[in-house]
Amino acid sequence: MARKTLAEFKAERIALNDVLLKSKHKYIQRFFNVDHGVYTEGTALPAKTKEMLGLAASLVLRCDDCITYHIIQCAEQGVTDAEFDDIFAIALVVGGSITIPHLRRAAGALEEFRNSS
Amino acid sequence: MARKTLAEFKAERIALNDVLLKSKHKYIQRFFNVDHGVYTEGTALPAKTKEMLGLAASLVLRCDDCITYHIIQCAEQGVTDAEFDDIFAIALVVGGSITIPHLRRAAGALEEFRNSS
Amino acid sequence: MARKTLAEFKAERIALNDVLLKSKHKYIQRFFNVDHGVYTEGTALPAKTKEMLGLAASLVLRCDDCITYHIIQCAEQGVTDAEFDDIFAIALVVGGSITIPHLRRAAGALEEFRNSS
Amino acid sequence: MARKTLAEFKAERIALNDVLLKSKHKYIQRFFNVDHGVYTEGTALPAKTKEMLGLAASLVLRCDDCITYHIIQCAEQGVTDAEFDDIFAIALVVGGSITIPHLRRAAGALEEFRNSS
Amino acid sequence: MARKTLAEFKAERIALNDVLLKSKHKYIQRFFNVDHGVYTEGTALPAKTKEMLGLAASLVLRCDDCITYHIIQCAEQGVTDAEFDDIFAIALVVGGSITIPHLRRAAGALEEFRNSS
Amino acid sequence: MARKTLAEFKAERIALNDVLLKSKHKYIQRFFNVDHGVYTEGTALPAKTKEMLGLAASLVLRCDDCITYHIIQCAEQGVTDAEFDDIFAIALVVGGSITIPHLRRAAGALEEFRNSS
Repeated sequence: MARKTLAEFKAERIALNDVLLKSKHKYIQRFFNVDHGVYTEGTALPAKTKEMLGLAASLVLRCDDCITYHIIQCAEQGVTDAEFDDIFAIALVVGGSITIPHLRRAAGALEEFRNSS
Repeated sequence: MARKTLAEFKAERIALNDVLLKSKHKYIQRFFNVDHGVYTEGTALPAKTKEMLGLAASLVLRCDDCITYHIIQCAEQGVTDAEFDDIFAIALVVGGSITIPHLRRAAGALEEFRNSS
Repeated sequence: MARKTLAEFKAERIALNDVLLKSKHKYIQRFFNVDHGVYTEGTALPAKTKEMLGLAASLVLRCDDCITYHIIQCAEQGVTDAEFDDIFAIALVVGGSITIPHLRRAAGALEEFRNSS
Repeated sequence: MARKTLAEFKAERIALNDVLLKSKHKYIQRFFNVDHGVYTEGTALPAKTKEMLGLAASLVLRCDDCITYHIIQCAEQGVTDAEFDDIFAIALVVGGSITIPHLRRAAGALEEFRNSS
Repeated sequence: MARKTLAEFKAERIALNDVLLKSKHKYIQRFFNVDHGVYTEGTALPAKTKEMLGLAASLVLRCDDCITYHIIQCAEQGVTDAEFDDIFAIALVVGGSITIPHLRRAAGALEEFRNSS
Repeated sequence: MARKTLAEFKAERIALNDVLLKSKHKYIQRFFNVDHGVYTEGTALPAKTKEMLGLAASLVLRCDDCITYHIIQCAEQGVTDAEFDDIFAIALVVGGSITIPHLRRAAGALEEFRNSS
């Protein structure tokens, strides 16, 4: 069982979001709208910083799919490898060694993204 | 790496429970008995409600195997799709976007269960 | 340092919600609206069941203020002492002994609520 | 608001356990029996080691009351200050800086216990 | 029981750090050095951004003392009220309603810091 | 999707650690050094006890890769099957039924290790 590839992550995410959202439950939909909006431009912090905050939060909460998602978003916002390392270091210190397997997969996802872009 | 199917979940669960329980450790066995009993009829709440509570707890604690288990139990207790959506919505609001990948897989497991029944 | 009383909980909640919400940040406000709406009538499950799900989720996530809030909401929705015990039992089994201090304070909050009503 | 003293912890624990357990719910009682038994002698590991494991688990899960309880149990089982430091160090590395406020209060509780014995 | 004031937080933090660190355990000390260093200037991200990441991580992990610490650090690095709101909003969406009591106390701590500066 | 085998775990761990550490970020490296050192002999507790503490912490925090790592370390330090059962029982009671899928995979990893040694 290898790490889920970016292509596998994206395909599963799209297919299962369709299943989750097909009933159009009012509060699930509203939550998804808020979840999309909170990372966009238009308030005090730039989108790049917001995505870095989302990545740090996902790392310490140890959710691989959330981490992969924010790795891609951060990279598309121009986060550099050295900046990713700083985010990884802070998540590691705050969250402890229990985050290491997730940091490993995060580094793998980032490498895959860089190689595929 | 696709989502674990219900058949794979059940096979792994049975095989590894045998390994975990083969030594008959007194307190592991007693815990398993309590874990089984707490969802049964015989106290104030009906089993259906207890299973919904177990599902909500599993969703916010983000344990895929626990979620799959309670999805099946809930469905067998007659929880409807609209009721599942309400449970998903509450877990999403309480637990935040970090639960979304687990909700996606929960919705996938439920769809698979409905299609196989 | 005694357990926070219900009156202290309510006073702190109102005062600090005012501080948190005074800037009217678009996404914080929308989240609060979703958080309020998700427990109301109008979808498949009755409000009483929704509040019980919110309580179970809060217990296993071990947030005292969230627990106190849902204890009050559940009690106002007519949850009986025997039903509360079932919720506590499920949260205890799912979340483990680490939830016990929170269950103790939950039981204390419920007793205080019953005595003050 | 100072750290809860050992006397306050013990008084609140006894008073609220009475409230939680007064209804004698079958599964809550069984869980409490398992929770008591699992740390006793009679299986492979000595009670001292079991208490150290309970303390490490409580530290990384960041439950102050659980930590205080196991600090007392460990100290009564003869855990030395240097051994406590090793447990604190491992919990700190596994759980990260987020455990530090709890480690501070753990060290305070231990100091209070040593001074009062 | 009111929210811990900034003065109480600082006094308890200094007093108990002394207790925790008095034995000079090698790995606890090294961890504290890493924990201090990781937020300083000298690598890719500025200290202000690092403190914002530390705050976001502390909020979703729901550690009041860690949050208070990073609120102060962020404010001293020049984080504005509108920027704090963005951080709070992202933590709320990622971590869910279970973070709300902590966000309330974070907003209270920030208000106290602004009033005392 | 079967449980990750020990060989797969080791291969992924080595390959991705190389990716994570290739930039030699100062604080990530220092953390890794502390993480390695804290389980070694030279302080009060023997390495075997330290590894058991690391395993208990990993079990209640529910990180499969961390659990597999400490299962191997514990087994190499001479932890017996009966001692593993005690550790599993304590983690189960502290962490609750949400740990069961991880305990199952832990038991599977241990069985695989015993069979391969």
